[in-house]
Amino acid sequence: MKILHTSDWHLGRSLHGYSLIEDQAYVLERLLEKIREDQVDLLVIAGDIYDKSIPTEAAVELFNHFISKVTLEYKISTIIISGNHDSGERIDFGSKLFESQHLYIVGKCPKGYQKVTVKVQDEELDVFMIPYIEPAHVREIAEDDTIKRHDEAMAYLIKAIENEKREVPTLLVAHAFVAGGDVSDSERRLSVVGGAELVSAQHFKNFTYTALGHLHKRQAMGAENIRYSGSLLKYSVSEANQKKGYVLLEIKKQKLVAIEEKELATKRNVRVLTGLLEELIASASLDAHKDDYVFVRIKGVPVADVTATLRHIYPNILGSEWVKDEASGEAVEEQKQVDFMATKEKTVTEVFMEFLDFIGETEFDEEETKYIKEIVQEIEEGKYEA
Amino acid sequence: MKILHTSDWHLGRSLHGYSLIEDQAYVLERLLEKIREDQVDLLVIAGDIYDKSIPTEAAVELFNHFISKVTLEYKISTIIISGNHDSGERIDFGSKLFESQHLYIVGKCPKGYQKVTVKVQDEELDVFMIPYIEPAHVREIAEDDTIKRHDEAMAYLIKAIENEKREVPTLLVAHAFVAGGDVSDSERRLSVVGGAELVSAQHFKNFTYTALGHLHKRQAMGAENIRYSGSLLKYSVSEANQKKGYVLLEIKKQKLVAIEEKELATKRNVRVLTGLLEELIASASLDAHKDDYVFVRIKGVPVADVTATLRHIYPNILGSEWVKDEASGEAVEEQKQVDFMATKEKTVTEVFMEFLDFIGETEFDEEETKYIKEIVQEIEEGKYEA
Repeated sequence: MKILHTSDWHLGRSLHGYSLIEDQAYVLERLLEKIREDQVDLLVIAGDIYDKSIPTEAAVELFNHFISKVTLEYKISTIIISGNHDSGERIDFGSKLFESQHLYIVGKCPKGYQKVTVKVQDEELDVFMIPYIEPAHVREIAEDDTIKRHDEAMAYLIKAIENEKREVPTLLVAHAFVAGGDVSDSERRLSVVGGAELVSAQHFKNFTYTALGHLHKRQAMGAENIRYSGSLLKYSVSEANQKKGYVLLEIKKQKLVAIEEKELATKRNVRVLTGLLEELIASASLDAHKDDYVFVRIKGVPVADVTATLRHIYPNILGSEWVKDEASGEAVEEQKQVDFMATKEKTVTEVFMEFLDFIGETEFDEEETKYIKEIVQEIEEGKYEA
Repeated sequence: MKILHTSDWHLGRSLHGYSLIEDQAYVLERLLEKIREDQVDLLVIAGDIYDKSIPTEAAVELFNHFISKVTLEYKISTIIISGNHDSGERIDFGSKLFESQHLYIVGKCPKGYQKVTVKVQDEELDVFMIPYIEPAHVREIAEDDTIKRHDEAMAYLIKAIENEKREVPTLLVAHAFVAGGDVSDSERRLSVVGGAELVSAQHFKNFTYTALGHLHKRQAMGAENIRYSGSLLKYSVSEANQKKGYVLLEIKKQKLVAIEEKELATKRNVRVLTGLLEELIASASLDAHKDDYVFVRIKGVPVADVTATLRHIYPNILGSEWVKDEASGEAVEEQKQVDFMATKEKTVTEVFMEFLDFIGETEFDEEETKYIKEIVQEIEEGKYEA
């Protein structure tokens, strides 16, 4: 059984003001070709189909076109969960009707997860789907007031799933922020603060494969069989050096026998160009992909209106910046490692102060300090819990 | 073959600030019961499923619940077209996948109409669906610049359909404003002005039955077999005296043998109460349905804060007004007949002046008059056509 793992499509997204819908339509056509070429039996999309809970009409049309083709023409099984950018309720529309055609879309679900068994020839696979879910919701499902963080919520759901597990290969599909992952600029940065959104990769160790969605960098999370497929396209300048595509797996005789990272051709690339302005202008004549989304890092003496000047050469220029220290002119990719255990030990006050520091607020007068302390106390007393 | 014709659900709608979602859920449960009781073979929803092009999550969930039940449990055929309140693109999501389960949802369609053949036992029916469409769009489809009004657009579509007609009963499903129809306050009133949105009932004379959506009053349009089912609920005070429900048809041996207007039980009614304040207060103690949506017309001497006072008795009071002339204290229902031929002959200037009068603007200085004339001229030259 061949499984294609993808996620974080963010259909309808823009990049520095440029609509990416054409780029998304293009790369999805390539994905359709690959599904055929690679003889995929099961397609898995691990959340964030759309960029917003209310997607644009163009995004809905694109997704509709894609799943209609996969389901009606290719007739393969498809598993889709909602991510934090999707509306579970909206994603669920028609999902019961799709099931007879082996299309399983799970947004809101009463248990917090849903199971489906996929059979291809003599190979059987139990798929457990955990769409993005807030801890408050799991707290209700579990009737357990101690569930406050995403890690505790995931622990509860995994335990419930473990009780249902059989002696067949298992695929877990989840949309979550796994601790230790490399974060890109296109994810919500605030979520890093405090660590309440982080879950441990340990939860996933007993599944044949865990198909994750949320982080935009394709990466394994401590084990080869626990992976983010990464986003469909580069959704920020910080992802310029990342390879985008999908993960292709094979399960044979109940064993995971292959994991491959694959690329997809794109309509336009996201690139960072670094150099002196005159160098960039000179080398542009040899640039065969001037319609790429380029971000320019200029060395040398500052000049006014560089972005506007370069737009004549690169119509889809994203922006520019001056590189003060020439030595650091190489990598733009900015990544943050989050120390999971460290954040878990922090007090609410520490997390709150970290947040205030994060947004640039560090000096407070007496009244403000008093007010902050009151709020922190109220949070600790659970006043703001949903 | 038994056919149930309904339309104008407007899921997610409010009435004077009250969300009607509970009322809508309640009446749809009653509709589900009736579908069983009446042994319906084909359900037809003639547009305006949702109240807005971007429906609320609750509205999407309700519609999802309804069609899942009808399709998966009752296993009957269903025909749904989008209305002017719906987004064709959004309504279309998954529609190709639904077809194998005899659920046909048509929003945007390349030809402007879509055909499907429904078979029940030995009875065959060709269904032609015309979702709400702007003349500009039909103009593109027809490649005919002379199509400017809805009537011309409908004429083109009907002609195209006539070419496809076979010797079997035909059902036309359309969302349009048929000339001569009784209009309620809950429809867009501006559309009345100028008549550009009106279509003639004559277009529909060659179909076995025409299931219309758009006008909220249940009514036949010049012939028994050309009908509006009316809206699911009373969506304005002007509809208080209207009966709401659905139309049930039967086709037997290729003939339309029965047309019945049926009612549905509602959670709360919309009522108009008229009388002296003291009478209304006194009779309220005998009112078994105090949670109805009531609009109050007070006779006698004006008193302050009547709505607030009566809210203690009628928690869902919609509002109140003083009846100056006691003789006219009976009917609130306000209807306008639109003279189709008359509006068709009007010039753009006349229509524009009618519009300005409609919104209460009748006096203009020299500069304003000049500006209006310029705009009218530009309209006549086709400058503002899509």
